[in-house]
Amino acid sequence: MSKGRVTIPTDESFAEGTKEIAKLWGADAVRDCDGTELPKNVKELAEKVYNTYFIVRGDNRWAEKHPEETHRTFLMSARFLAEGKQLVIDPMQGYFAQQIQPDRENKAYWEVYDRTSGAKHTDWSCDEKTGTVVVRNARPMHEYTVNFMAKVIWHPVQIYNYLTNNWTCEKQRMYDPAFPNTAEYIKRHMDEWCKAHPETDVVRFTTFLYQFTLIFNEKGKEKYVDWFGYGLSTSPALLQAFEKEYGYALCSEDFVRAGNYNSPFLNPDKKFLDWMDFVQRKVSGTVRGLVDIVHAHGKEAMMFLGDDWIGAEPYGKYFKDMDLDAVVGSVGGGVTVRMLSEIPHVKYREGRFLPYFFPDTFFEGNEDNAVAELDRNWTTARRALLRKPFDRMGFGGYLSLAAKFPKFVRRAGEICDEFRDIVAAAGKAKPYSGLTVAVLNAWGSLRSWQSHMVAHELWYQQIYSYQGILEALSGLAVNVKFISFDEVLKYGVDKEIDVIINVGDAYTAFSGGDYWADDRLSEIIRAWVREGHGFIGVGEPTAYAKGGRYFRLADVMGADKELGFTLSEDKYNIEKKQHFITEDVRGEIDYGEGMKNVYALEGADVLDIAFSDRFRRSVNVGEVKLTANEYGKGRGVYIAGLPYSAQNARLLYRAMFWSAGREEEMYRAFSSDPDTECTYYPEEKKYAIVNNSLRDVTATFYDMQGKEREIKLGAHRILWVME
Amino acid sequence: MSKGRVTIPTDESFAEGTKEIAKLWGADAVRDCDGTELPKNVKELAEKVYNTYFIVRGDNRWAEKHPEETHRTFLMSARFLAEGKQLVIDPMQGYFAQQIQPDRENKAYWEVYDRTSGAKHTDWSCDEKTGTVVVRNARPMHEYTVNFMAKVIWHPVQIYNYLTNNWTCEKQRMYDPAFPNTAEYIKRHMDEWCKAHPETDVVRFTTFLYQFTLIFNEKGKEKYVDWFGYGLSTSPALLQAFEKEYGYALCSEDFVRAGNYNSPFLNPDKKFLDWMDFVQRKVSGTVRGLVDIVHAHGKEAMMFLGDDWIGAEPYGKYFKDMDLDAVVGSVGGGVTVRMLSEIPHVKYREGRFLPYFFPDTFFEGNEDNAVAELDRNWTTARRALLRKPFDRMGFGGYLSLAAKFPKFVRRAGEICDEFRDIVAAAGKAKPYSGLTVAVLNAWGSLRSWQSHMVAHELWYQQIYSYQGILEALSGLAVNVKFISFDEVLKYGVDKEIDVIINVGDAYTAFSGGDYWADDRLSEIIRAWVREGHGFIGVGEPTAYAKGGRYFRLADVMGADKELGFTLSEDKYNIEKKQHFITEDVRGEIDYGEGMKNVYALEGADVLDIAFSDRFRRSVNVGEVKLTANEYGKGRGVYIAGLPYSAQNARLLYRAMFWSAGREEEMYRAFSSDPDTECTYYPEEKKYAIVNNSLRDVTATFYDMQGKEREIKLGAHRILWVME
Repeated sequence: MSKGRVTIPTDESFAEGTKEIAKLWGADAVRDCDGTELPKNVKELAEKVYNTYFIVRGDNRWAEKHPEETHRTFLMSARFLAEGKQLVIDPMQGYFAQQIQPDRENKAYWEVYDRTSGAKHTDWSCDEKTGTVVVRNARPMHEYTVNFMAKVIWHPVQIYNYLTNNWTCEKQRMYDPAFPNTAEYIKRHMDEWCKAHPETDVVRFTTFLYQFTLIFNEKGKEKYVDWFGYGLSTSPALLQAFEKEYGYALCSEDFVRAGNYNSPFLNPDKKFLDWMDFVQRKVSGTVRGLVDIVHAHGKEAMMFLGDDWIGAEPYGKYFKDMDLDAVVGSVGGGVTVRMLSEIPHVKYREGRFLPYFFPDTFFEGNEDNAVAELDRNWTTARRALLRKPFDRMGFGGYLSLAAKFPKFVRRAGEICDEFRDIVAAAGKAKPYSGLTVAVLNAWGSLRSWQSHMVAHELWYQQIYSYQGILEALSGLAVNVKFISFDEVLKYGVDKEIDVIINVGDAYTAFSGGDYWADDRLSEIIRAWVREGHGFIGVGEPTAYAKGGRYFRLADVMGADKELGFTLSEDKYNIEKKQHFITEDVRGEIDYGEGMKNVYALEGADVLDIAFSDRFRRSVNVGEVKLTANEYGKGRGVYIAGLPYSAQNARLLYRAMFWSAGREEEMYRAFSSDPDTECTYYPEEKKYAIVNNSLRDVTATFYDMQGKEREIKLGAHRILWVME
Repeated sequence: MSKGRVTIPTDESFAEGTKEIAKLWGADAVRDCDGTELPKNVKELAEKVYNTYFIVRGDNRWAEKHPEETHRTFLMSARFLAEGKQLVIDPMQGYFAQQIQPDRENKAYWEVYDRTSGAKHTDWSCDEKTGTVVVRNARPMHEYTVNFMAKVIWHPVQIYNYLTNNWTCEKQRMYDPAFPNTAEYIKRHMDEWCKAHPETDVVRFTTFLYQFTLIFNEKGKEKYVDWFGYGLSTSPALLQAFEKEYGYALCSEDFVRAGNYNSPFLNPDKKFLDWMDFVQRKVSGTVRGLVDIVHAHGKEAMMFLGDDWIGAEPYGKYFKDMDLDAVVGSVGGGVTVRMLSEIPHVKYREGRFLPYFFPDTFFEGNEDNAVAELDRNWTTARRALLRKPFDRMGFGGYLSLAAKFPKFVRRAGEICDEFRDIVAAAGKAKPYSGLTVAVLNAWGSLRSWQSHMVAHELWYQQIYSYQGILEALSGLAVNVKFISFDEVLKYGVDKEIDVIINVGDAYTAFSGGDYWADDRLSEIIRAWVREGHGFIGVGEPTAYAKGGRYFRLADVMGADKELGFTLSEDKYNIEKKQHFITEDVRGEIDYGEGMKNVYALEGADVLDIAFSDRFRRSVNVGEVKLTANEYGKGRGVYIAGLPYSAQNARLLYRAMFWSAGREEEMYRAFSSDPDTECTYYPEEKKYAIVNNSLRDVTATFYDMQGKEREIKLGAHRILWVME
């Protein structure tokens, strides 16, 4: 039986049980779990012991000694309408006083804005008694807001657990190492902690210095969440250091941006990019100091990709400078697998699977559901793991709960074995990729596998139709890259790329918005497609109204969106055609939220179109959902939206091969049924064929030479075929 | 039995039958029909005889004598991609050579544009042999188009009939009275024609000088249609006269606008407004010359609002200068009734009802369908006629066909009587209006009842959800005005207005787009609402991204649209509330195309919201469809879309009364069932209550004092109640 690569939770009340399960699952590491202590004999349980470590919280005495060194954030007040020339704004309206405290010592950073005109307003003062802001000489019927610096006096993630899970422990305050006292303190503390924890092999940092933006409202409910948000990094210390280094000062509005707070859906401006770069350097430097201490104690440093990870962008320029040994993160679906498994510059990456061993799942009578959730999570992740596995897997929660479910223990053991098999086959070299595909957006590689997320892994109606493209890609037999508009403008399209995908809503950082104002972008991509490459647009790709078109590359995709201005033009290209791309489609294609008012240009092939059942007299134009278009020697495809499903992943796979003009090559290392997928490992000369569905599948398997054979796969099964 | 106010078609083969039907229907006028001759004894058939007259077509000999005086238009060629530095464009690609002829004598007006950069391109020439345009020094991978002046050599409306109805008569050429010879000719011809037609009482102009834009493609199918389009008015003669008068020249791009051709969905720019004004004056002056001749012969002049009506805007400044006696138009629904019936400065207005007496409806065995179509058309129109009737009604086609259907003849007779009753009750003074409501858009009163139309009366998927607002208004007991942004900016909101409605897609002339860049517009309307008025937004009202909001008056309506940039903000206002506005709603509300991604602001009441059935884990924000919001002493309402239906008309009625803060006043001259509507005529002290549905209705009728009584109304019936 294989062993290793698995981490399990343990606690002092379950030491013997841990040993048993460790044996069954081949686990070689144990970790602590929130609110528990490690057993005294923990070193006997596994080869490695992980221990959670917090840098900027956990020592309230320190926090109380240096309240001036707490974290800061810039917030925008609610909008207040000026009824006359004067108005009074309470900045705290709508905010949670237990989390947020207006920082009146730093009023120099406060600003008042007329949000109706967009102009900064200078005639105002703060009433020291009430804390309200009095705006004078206002323009009646304009809305005003105050941008204020605030102290963060309770750690946001703890607020969440506190209020959601009714915690009663002490409320953890925060302290920011950007300030001198804390900078010194965290090193001392790290060293002392290492000394006090000889049993610990791996320091699991949860996480580093700056929490992603997470603000609560006056009822203690989440008000604002941005998993990518740099909002809590804006301490006066950092702002001053930034000004010194960059030669210009940032103001509150550079962070507030009229309430959009530099959302990753916005194209980033230079100031924000500068700030991100600056914070990344600062975080890397500070963390490196701690990692060196950890290493000096003979321990490893592991980053949890989750909470205070801001500035530690794993695909950023300075990530390697931290000298981390490992990264761990939770596994939602294929996208989160790839986000973790491709992180460079660490020795190993670990994924934590669902379900957590918590009482909400592990209660009497719920064993079958627990196994089903495990199977679902595993199957969703597996297709991505086959492409690029992380090095270790793990679970979280109370192992004693899982131990009560023998079927669960058995199935988890099988999965651990399957995982080790995959790592063994895929670990050394890249699996075969039929194509190299690049997702083009404003963020590029910095946010590899991180586009179209708001809060980590949460479902939003506005993103799932686009996020489905990434989820599909995470398990398809193509090499995936993330490239930025800036890169393309500067260097052109990388030679190895076969297909470019642009996916998102108009004017977002994902479709590109203002980047498309630059004609060179259109020139470069048009020329590149015409040479014989593929371009796939999803949603409102390349949208930027100019020259009578809405999609800048409408001519490439053979589709544009009707804004009303060309309703007078008759559109006759409405006949649905059979096509290579839709060959595996059974029933309706699911476009998710889809896209309204898209029509096909003359000459494009319409692969799918919906007609209103309200049509009465004429002008039955229909809404085009899918087009395929020859463009020079290359090809373009338009898709209205594509949530993840087996059928949609297959559709995208076909669209990519078709757009690259390499349809025949698709039938290499290929399994015919869309519920199945095939990965080929050239070094090991092995094929892995998986059934992602709950049904038994009979399919045709094509090897690398295109030779066919029939295969049968039970629900969720994996089949290894040797060459 | 009542008599008069009815016009019927006749022809030489059906003189005796005409007499009989005229008696049954009380018809007092006869008209000719396309392709027929009036009977010799036509003067015996009715008091008045109408005869169709064309000004700019019908005399091909004249047209052939003066081919240089034909109509002109500016067209944009297809888009051609520059693969290298030089490319060749065939301007005629996609156009119909039988309609369109490039006018190479007027090449001074031709322009080449780089549609990728938007820049005018000057390095080109026209190959005289092939007619193609050679573009030199092009920027590779940019799309280029040629704007060319073209001669229109076949009348567009005739092309339609020719190709659709397989006509074989001579193809009618055109001649433009902007040119000196034709200017003189049309007067002479008018005079001669009047002399030759002593039997004619009414000259029915079909219509005047410039056809609305109607262009055909290379297959002879409609390519471009804009019922409001000034595209066919651009003769060199007029362009030169314009330059002389206005001191600046217009170029082809001022009309082409990158292929948008000054669509009424675009905010008009100053140049186009100048041109419209100029053409209106020219048309009015020219037509006045002909009307004077008609009058001199003791005849009346009637305008058909349909074909060559460009420049004769019935709600324009110069319409009265034509000294017309009458206007006639066809009746689609309530909107077309009001568009006709409110035309000022004529002695009478006439509406032509459906169905036409053509063989496609009047064939053996189809009598019930013919009656049903008549009923449907009548009932839809009647609710608008009750608010403001036109003075006469009529039918078209071959009377002999209708005469074969006795049930049809009987029902049409009843309708003629009902029509005369309505005119008698409503003709003298305005019926009671509970409110004055203004539709606010870029066109204002110039395009009264003419917003959200593309081709006359045709259904488009992109407009019915907005056009439904006008259709509802056409029969509701409110006074309706159309006001423009310019007016509001200049003069504020007229005192008599209680409610403003802004309805349409973002950045169109109907929602306003760039007008909202002017903060004063928001200031004026906010202040006005806060004083105690109502504002109703439909679709993407006041949309103009600024200051972190998309709807400029989001605060008034309590709703905004999510573009992605504030997805990080939690939206908790998702609980649906019962409300006065939705009190009559049974089942689902029909929002038509609706509007995606709208959310309610805190404090607003959500009256309807849809949740995605895909929701999995959290962030169940929903899409808000209907909000009601207190705003100072006034109120705002947001509606996602509102196609016409009895239920939606009632919903709008309630929304208007609620937003004006006058809910109780709604119960005056009111019938409780949404399928019924009530009009009160103060002068006549009469109530008309109509059942717009096919079912028998029992409802509660409230008189002007709010006194209730039960009423019963059969399908499509009208009930007159005396005070």
